[in-house]
Amino acid sequence: MYTIGIDFGTLSGRAVLIDTRDGREITSAVYDYPHGVIDDVLPASGRKLPPDWALQDPQDYIDVLTHTVPAVLRQSGIDPKEVVGIGTDFTASSPMPVKQDGTPLSFLPEFRDEPHAYVKLWKHHAGQRQADLINETARKMGETWLARYGGKISSEWFFSKLLQILQEAPSVYREIDQFIEAADWIIWQMTGVETRNTCTAGYKAMVQDGHFPSKAYFAALDPAFADVVETKIGTTDFAQLGDKAGELTPEMAAKMGLPAGIAVAVANVDAHVAAPAVKATEAGVMVMIMGTSTCHIMSGTQLQDVDGMCGVVKGGIIPGLYGYEAGQSGVGDIFAWFVDHAVPPEYHEAAQAAGLNLHEYLERESAKQAVGEHGLIALDWWNGNRSTLVDADLTGMMVGMTLATRAPDIYRALIEATAFGTRVIIEAFEDRGVAVNELVAAGGLPEKNALLRQIYADVTGRSFKLAGSAQAPALGSAMHAAVAAGVYPNIQAAAEKMGKLKDEVVTPIPANQKVYDQLYADYKTLYDYFGRGANDVMKRLKQIKRAAHA
Amino acid sequence: MYTIGIDFGTLSGRAVLIDTRDGREITSAVYDYPHGVIDDVLPASGRKLPPDWALQDPQDYIDVLTHTVPAVLRQSGIDPKEVVGIGTDFTASSPMPVKQDGTPLSFLPEFRDEPHAYVKLWKHHAGQRQADLINETARKMGETWLARYGGKISSEWFFSKLLQILQEAPSVYREIDQFIEAADWIIWQMTGVETRNTCTAGYKAMVQDGHFPSKAYFAALDPAFADVVETKIGTTDFAQLGDKAGELTPEMAAKMGLPAGIAVAVANVDAHVAAPAVKATEAGVMVMIMGTSTCHIMSGTQLQDVDGMCGVVKGGIIPGLYGYEAGQSGVGDIFAWFVDHAVPPEYHEAAQAAGLNLHEYLERESAKQAVGEHGLIALDWWNGNRSTLVDADLTGMMVGMTLATRAPDIYRALIEATAFGTRVIIEAFEDRGVAVNELVAAGGLPEKNALLRQIYADVTGRSFKLAGSAQAPALGSAMHAAVAAGVYPNIQAAAEKMGKLKDEVVTPIPANQKVYDQLYADYKTLYDYFGRGANDVMKRLKQIKRAAHA
Repeated sequence: MYTIGIDFGTLSGRAVLIDTRDGREITSAVYDYPHGVIDDVLPASGRKLPPDWALQDPQDYIDVLTHTVPAVLRQSGIDPKEVVGIGTDFTASSPMPVKQDGTPLSFLPEFRDEPHAYVKLWKHHAGQRQADLINETARKMGETWLARYGGKISSEWFFSKLLQILQEAPSVYREIDQFIEAADWIIWQMTGVETRNTCTAGYKAMVQDGHFPSKAYFAALDPAFADVVETKIGTTDFAQLGDKAGELTPEMAAKMGLPAGIAVAVANVDAHVAAPAVKATEAGVMVMIMGTSTCHIMSGTQLQDVDGMCGVVKGGIIPGLYGYEAGQSGVGDIFAWFVDHAVPPEYHEAAQAAGLNLHEYLERESAKQAVGEHGLIALDWWNGNRSTLVDADLTGMMVGMTLATRAPDIYRALIEATAFGTRVIIEAFEDRGVAVNELVAAGGLPEKNALLRQIYADVTGRSFKLAGSAQAPALGSAMHAAVAAGVYPNIQAAAEKMGKLKDEVVTPIPANQKVYDQLYADYKTLYDYFGRGANDVMKRLKQIKRAAHA
Repeated sequence: MYTIGIDFGTLSGRAVLIDTRDGREITSAVYDYPHGVIDDVLPASGRKLPPDWALQDPQDYIDVLTHTVPAVLRQSGIDPKEVVGIGTDFTASSPMPVKQDGTPLSFLPEFRDEPHAYVKLWKHHAGQRQADLINETARKMGETWLARYGGKISSEWFFSKLLQILQEAPSVYREIDQFIEAADWIIWQMTGVETRNTCTAGYKAMVQDGHFPSKAYFAALDPAFADVVETKIGTTDFAQLGDKAGELTPEMAAKMGLPAGIAVAVANVDAHVAAPAVKATEAGVMVMIMGTSTCHIMSGTQLQDVDGMCGVVKGGIIPGLYGYEAGQSGVGDIFAWFVDHAVPPEYHEAAQAAGLNLHEYLERESAKQAVGEHGLIALDWWNGNRSTLVDADLTGMMVGMTLATRAPDIYRALIEATAFGTRVIIEAFEDRGVAVNELVAAGGLPEKNALLRQIYADVTGRSFKLAGSAQAPALGSAMHAAVAAGVYPNIQAAAEKMGKLKDEVVTPIPANQKVYDQLYADYKTLYDYFGRGANDVMKRLKQIKRAAHA
């Protein structure tokens, strides 16, 4: 028996066909969204979008289903009848306004030219004013749920986006029957049944202990927002991860080349769904989805307000456990910045001569160093700090440069800085009694960079494992599909058979740990000094910079 | 009437022939020292030198005289009889052991293979252990002269080098009749008269108020050092700058192609002699000799212990005034480090396409920015901090980097950091009531970089002028020769006629000053935080680095 996992990313969707017996990937197919990220002009009319907007066209998601699923079936040569379920995961929060029957407002001719009618992609930041209001109001009213989000709601999240529509386009707002995550909408399209998954509801829509914030709170944001839950969401009955959302409709089954009636799993989020794909179904395993940034996904047995986390949601990752999320807002993109903008020609030439890309070459050169040999410490805040400081206005810092400092020194110091940043997050969890026993990383960055794996193990004092699949989210979705189809009784059982880890386990080297403990003590001192108000120079520099640009 | 000024540098000597009426340079000639800096092996035997040694062969200095002076005479076509005097300036402290008649020990066959017999060039740092002892003993004994040197004697100075000979090669020490600055030795060679100039005696040999430190102090350093002044120096009668040391001997006159009996001025130091060359003969003008590092030379009417200065010597620059010296240990070499080691290929290519060198291109690009637009602040300590912290173990720091930071941003921030460093020095002077009214810079760096000139004016709030001669030290030496020859009654009068400033006066732009005042406040906070013990992370990183290398 097989299941299909579909991972809806920022620029494309990817389907993988998985053998439910062992998690083996049979085939996969990618489909690029025809409209991509709409952040410049609306394709329908050429209408210019303001800065910080990022939209998508939901038709692209349907197209992913009708292109990739037939492709994986065709490539595999298996009998479609052997496919027993479908699972999906999505970027989040990427919500959209729809009519009562699920038709996106953006599909209606009268709204084709209305930006607010489209999916607001996760990286749509134009609702910052609304996010500020949401935070300020929550602080003033002493809303207890705020601490479950590290004290700050993001402009990327559900209600920031919906409140933006109300305040900027009230006539559009009036026409919305449902404001729904694209993650849930695609399930609705496949099954004809509207569900709302507990993961996005919890992490992105402030649902805690089964409840949205109070009517009084929403009214305080805007009187016209008081009834937002009743009028734009409706349900407070959230679907659990791994449950069956419904069955594939005959119409969609025909378009996708699958048997009608097979199980469709409840929607999920791309980072969170990776946990079972790497067998992280118990408390204490920190899953790091590492790319331009890092998302930390962790389960715990108790509810704790962890300093600066992104969120904690019961059943948000694994049913029955508290799912924690934290993040580092700059990781791979800091290394890319360095390689693109601060490495002199001689290293470009040497890399080419060695037949390596520049990342590989700098990794090789800096791996020759003993710990501490470069004499540098950096604060990894080139893109702000998400956890534990939740502060986008923080910036990068480096200390220790001499006339003898060279590119491999800085490259290594930047990797170490991100590892120190992860250690701060781990300690924030452990300070609240949420154990972090080991690290499992998914993504191309940790897979390619052996030095990074060793540094993370040495700095954190944890063993470091790698995801066994390069498509961990899609595999995780296929596993949830297997649970929804009844192949396995629960995600733990599915993970045991289908989850994948590479054989390599990187363990800390005690001699390195000893030096990194010293360096980390200094990192932490600088972290607190620059990050917690002792010296707000980073913020003053940003203010001066903004004034200079204005 | 003409005089000749000869500037003895680290790698070569340069003679200029100057018209005493107006300071006009007629001709110049350079002669590279055949032995250069001896820091690897002794040429005589191939004997390997330990690390941190830097020697010279005094024959090279004689060769400069006999090559460059005939060359400038020949090129100019003037009648040598019109030359009325010679002045010289030298690196310092570059002392050497000689016999009673002035013969360098290194000239004697039995010492050709003895490193301690040679000139110890200013950058010979192998006497650090002796310098540490000198400082520690002075602190313990409460020696009042220590404050005149910013609280720290350098391994580069006179007694650190002589004590090294005593402790490492007592048999050589015994053979020394005189330990003398090369600056004074070359005068001795030309005139047959031994003099010791007040400038090197004051700045490099701890002479204050006409006295060396006490016999008890020298005895505390080493019992065998107790009589060092009597046995290795002899005189405490110091020659004033601008005085005539003696007259050119017939023998040397013949070799140099000059009339015998013309005036030879008292020896001088390269940085200090530049002051009159830029008309800075009154109190309140800070002369900055800017190159890889910056030397700040200033006269004042009162004696004050300025925080972290290199030294204060009565008559050390201009007779009758207190001559102050301060320094920044890394300036041009920080910009060179950046350009050589941290600029990506695209800027190299763009510079080439624009027909500019990379410094020029980065200057042009960063000059387009408004003050504060890059959002960065750096501490300019890549090579440690001389004034005001006197701490070689401090290192560079930069804060404010984002993913949008580019090479011109960092280049500009580094220039600004050195300007902020100069402002700290200015404020240290003014805190003690030593006025700094304007800046005059000499050297290729300020001459080439208009952005740097404007930044220094804006950051310091002082008008910024440029030396009129590219060879300010040699011109200054020729001016002292004119005074020694009686063409002018004193250096002030000589400076009025012969000193040279460029016409351009860069004045502060009030709008820029306003923003730089804000940025400087943050620089100062970081300066104190990292430099004055609140967070000694730079030193800990250096310790860890040393341990890692060991």
